[in-house]
Amino acid sequence: MTLFVRMAVGIALTLAAASAQGQDLIVEKKTLELPTYTTAGGATIKGVKVGWEAYGQLNADRSNAILVTHFFSGTSHAAGKYKPEDRAPGYWDPIIGPGKAIDTNRYFVISSDTLVNLSPKDPNVVTTGPATIDPATGKPYGLSFPVVSIRDFVNVQKALLDSLGIRKLKAVVGASMGALQAYEWAVAYPEMVDRIVPVIGAAGGDAYLGAWVEVWGAPIRLDPKWKGGAYDPQDPPKEGLAAALKVVTLHAQGPEWAAKNFGRSPAEEGKNPAAALQNRFKLEAALDAASAARAGVADANHMLYLVRANQLAAADPTKIKAPALIVYTPTDQVFRQGWIERTAAAIKANGTPVETVEITGPNGHLNGVLHIAQAGAKIAEFLAK
Amino acid sequence: MTLFVRMAVGIALTLAAASAQGQDLIVEKKTLELPTYTTAGGATIKGVKVGWEAYGQLNADRSNAILVTHFFSGTSHAAGKYKPEDRAPGYWDPIIGPGKAIDTNRYFVISSDTLVNLSPKDPNVVTTGPATIDPATGKPYGLSFPVVSIRDFVNVQKALLDSLGIRKLKAVVGASMGALQAYEWAVAYPEMVDRIVPVIGAAGGDAYLGAWVEVWGAPIRLDPKWKGGAYDPQDPPKEGLAAALKVVTLHAQGPEWAAKNFGRSPAEEGKNPAAALQNRFKLEAALDAASAARAGVADANHMLYLVRANQLAAADPTKIKAPALIVYTPTDQVFRQGWIERTAAAIKANGTPVETVEITGPNGHLNGVLHIAQAGAKIAEFLAK
Repeated sequence: MTLFVRMAVGIALTLAAASAQGQDLIVEKKTLELPTYTTAGGATIKGVKVGWEAYGQLNADRSNAILVTHFFSGTSHAAGKYKPEDRAPGYWDPIIGPGKAIDTNRYFVISSDTLVNLSPKDPNVVTTGPATIDPATGKPYGLSFPVVSIRDFVNVQKALLDSLGIRKLKAVVGASMGALQAYEWAVAYPEMVDRIVPVIGAAGGDAYLGAWVEVWGAPIRLDPKWKGGAYDPQDPPKEGLAAALKVVTLHAQGPEWAAKNFGRSPAEEGKNPAAALQNRFKLEAALDAASAARAGVADANHMLYLVRANQLAAADPTKIKAPALIVYTPTDQVFRQGWIERTAAAIKANGTPVETVEITGPNGHLNGVLHIAQAGAKIAEFLAK
Repeated sequence: MTLFVRMAVGIALTLAAASAQGQDLIVEKKTLELPTYTTAGGATIKGVKVGWEAYGQLNADRSNAILVTHFFSGTSHAAGKYKPEDRAPGYWDPIIGPGKAIDTNRYFVISSDTLVNLSPKDPNVVTTGPATIDPATGKPYGLSFPVVSIRDFVNVQKALLDSLGIRKLKAVVGASMGALQAYEWAVAYPEMVDRIVPVIGAAGGDAYLGAWVEVWGAPIRLDPKWKGGAYDPQDPPKEGLAAALKVVTLHAQGPEWAAKNFGRSPAEEGKNPAAALQNRFKLEAALDAASAARAGVADANHMLYLVRANQLAAADPTKIKAPALIVYTPTDQVFRQGWIERTAAAIKANGTPVETVEITGPNGHLNGVLHIAQAGAKIAEFLAK
């Protein structure tokens, strides 16, 4: 029994035990280590590590794997809990688990942290990026870290699958930046990918969205503590990073969410924003608090590298031969419905089957994460084809 | 002959001369001075000045006036040229002039700079705001300037019209923040407003857009030179202001504009953004150049006050009795089509006639400024009713 099969079986036993007791999936975070990784751009990085986790059991011929690729501010933690007392399960827990749409009784579902993951300080994240210590200098790489792209995220996932002896994927499923990876997988390794389920994401690159993600990162560059990327790890550009994450949070949300939860209430009773410029709205205070919390585990340079990886996304939808189920939401402010429709049409133009499913909710782009259960039946049916 | 009639006739003669020669309208910038102005919030500002200009001739019973209200980064300069050698005429010149949709042979068209106008350093702008010298201290007001709102912009325009003896408006016509003023006029002074033509704007306030305009201004607050609003006028937070204007520019534009004009070309030949984080896209460089130029005549605190004025916009569309022609564009990222449709429905619910007209183009929200000629015939017909 090779190492990768023993690992997979070990996970499967853990899951089976949890499932039998009707508990949450309990998942274990693991680490892939690559002595070197050469980027799509030709740069070599030594000692690459990324975290991964899996749900369900890899079958004997290793033909039942589904890869889940994560969104911009996401991690490998797509489902289950690391410990029973965890506050919340992984982000797509409503559709991943025993008997769920992505049924871990049938499929071996695997997910990994990307390179340059946004949150290297999250204890459950393992990633390699500009905040990693460069063995050559003993200091963080900073901007000497090579630019990486969505293709690099895919190539590292490929190395993970290779290490487990997986040669075929039943599907690649991912939301937002995860959708970019799903399209990229179908273009880069068409022989490995049976199907794709891109959620709230379009293919082919878009200059306008590229400029928007630059706006996301812009406050970091304005923070004097950023120091051109060479900041002191003990005194990072926290304020700029929090302001950057605030833009991401707002862009990913929707008007109904803002109206329903906040309206135009003041942040503090008696401090009306109409009375003084310093007085603020409750929504601003909530966004600031959420962003500051996220900034605590995030890294500023990682965010800028993620921005660039997204700007370079360029999977050509006309080259996709894997049948696709594309999930979108009409109030998406990040990946506009019209662009997703053009992606679907470009894939179809080849004779490749494409289905689309619309989900709704008050949360704009994030409907694809928070309300994914609406697409559950359609996803299950698509995977079973 | 009272002063205001003499002024109006003077303008009319100038225009008639220009028109007869088939030249551009030549317009003269004038200044309204109010010894004091009390804001809707109850604060008193001494020595308020705003600039204004007009096109066409005020008729004897002063019943042919149309007020044009400007957008966030706009000025009173809606049409014509100040000097024949001006590079470009006012922003809505295609629909304002002799024989045009808003026909200056029939109407007296008047437009003024708002309070806290974005660009107090523009030699053709006259405004009062936080950059104005407080006569009590000899220094700029800074954040001691009272918060003002769209209602205040309307009230100052009302004072201007009062000074000219105008008691009725054939119409209030404005784009974006100008549309907010048109709705506000219809609610605040229903007896004065015959019709409104809100272009690329919705009524009633929206927490989500409120948070977005806060994002517009956020880079200013992050610039250490902003100093909590008390910056040295000789050393203002230029970098933050330029970054702020970059966000506005992008938000007001559209995906087709970005794709068609820039795509994902590098800013400099041979400096591929895939090769180094410092390398940039051509679109970024273009946005930066445009924003830096705009920042040169703009003021950081004025921008923050404008942001707040927009956040406080709250004209209730159900109270509007003036027939409305609402112009929208489907790719608008600022005032979403769905919200504009809800505004139209809310006005209609009273039995108030509402017509809508769609315009298209590659420029997103800015279609309402750059491609307004598409709505010209509909506007002319609506005004003639």
